[in-house]
Amino acid sequence: MDMKRKTGLILALDVLSRERAIDLATSLADCFDAIKIGYPLILAAGLEIISEISKQAPVIADLKIADIPNTDRLICEQVLGAGASGVIAHAFTGSDSLRACANCAGQFGADLFVVTEMSHPGAREFMGPAAADMARLAVDCGAAGVVAPATRPERIKMIRSIVGQMLIISPGVGAQGGSAKSALQAGADYIIVGRSIIDADDPEAKARELLSQIL
Amino acid sequence: MDMKRKTGLILALDVLSRERAIDLATSLADCFDAIKIGYPLILAAGLEIISEISKQAPVIADLKIADIPNTDRLICEQVLGAGASGVIAHAFTGSDSLRACANCAGQFGADLFVVTEMSHPGAREFMGPAAADMARLAVDCGAAGVVAPATRPERIKMIRSIVGQMLIISPGVGAQGGSAKSALQAGADYIIVGRSIIDADDPEAKARELLSQIL
Repeated sequence: MDMKRKTGLILALDVLSRERAIDLATSLADCFDAIKIGYPLILAAGLEIISEISKQAPVIADLKIADIPNTDRLICEQVLGAGASGVIAHAFTGSDSLRACANCAGQFGADLFVVTEMSHPGAREFMGPAAADMARLAVDCGAAGVVAPATRPERIKMIRSIVGQMLIISPGVGAQGGSAKSALQAGADYIIVGRSIIDADDPEAKARELLSQIL
Repeated sequence: MDMKRKTGLILALDVLSRERAIDLATSLADCFDAIKIGYPLILAAGLEIISEISKQAPVIADLKIADIPNTDRLICEQVLGAGASGVIAHAFTGSDSLRACANCAGQFGADLFVVTEMSHPGAREFMGPAAADMARLAVDCGAAGVVAPATRPERIKMIRSIVGQMLIISPGVGAQGGSAKSALQAGADYIIVGRSIIDADDPEAKARELLSQIL
């Protein structure tokens, strides 16, 4: 995709207002290599928000796609057709579903990122025990990268041992308690950060402060 | 929610055009107790499609929600606020995520349906082994029902033995090869059918033919 590693930071644009999203993307684009957008914003602002934000930075559509292959393909076509450079899918739904996403991403020249496990406590219940197998599946499907939690650096190390040179993008820094530095030291390529920047009194200053800690 | 069992059928409105969706919902509403809408249509037509379709029948938003608790809540708020009577979430993201969906559904007086496993082949890989535990989690969270595949009636029986009187809604009939009758005999309360009706030359006739087979 269009993402080049300059800062190693991905902004999780977790807001619901189109205007706020565009304002934040515009003022923060310099500090981030990509901007991650999820369903709450897309539902509130419409699919067009993807093309609007992608004027500022490459957009990763964090849809955590988890349906049957045909539906997964239709979802990928919509968001990649709208201008997203990457898309995030779950591996839990199995190899055929994940391949449908990988194939569609390939057709658009976009990147597929695969969730291995997540940063919230409940992720330990079903996803944790399956994380290594899901990381292997991501490799088999030719994904561009995987998503692994910054809240658990030891899990990033484990995932790195499976995925080789594949990208690891890592959420959970800030509001969820993860440390950017320890996630990077454990092997993450990109740190995903959202609420701790967006909710700051001065988001740009906060982003530069985070940058100074990791660069 | 507003769904009353008259026909035992739920229409999977798997189209991408707003006009076609409204036409089909209008002509087919009599044959179905609810209409299930997924992300491909919502992304293509906008969130408003939910309120438009809900004029014809109760809408189940089949989003297969699978994110962290805070994001799950934000997604539920959007679709239930737009008029959906029910929402479908995954259980594999764990109890805190699922409870976030259940709590939000409760606030809206809406129904949460929980995916135990799915109808495509890849669902056997990670979801199949976890299905029983995920069904138990659905019970613990006070969900209104679970989703179990019509393509595997023996799995519906197993899920029924866990969930007691909870609703079971069952996709995979028709295009994916499942039989409505055997799914109902195995314990499903509602059959979800989409492409085999929608893609028929005469969708209404096809729906009435299916109804005559099961009533």
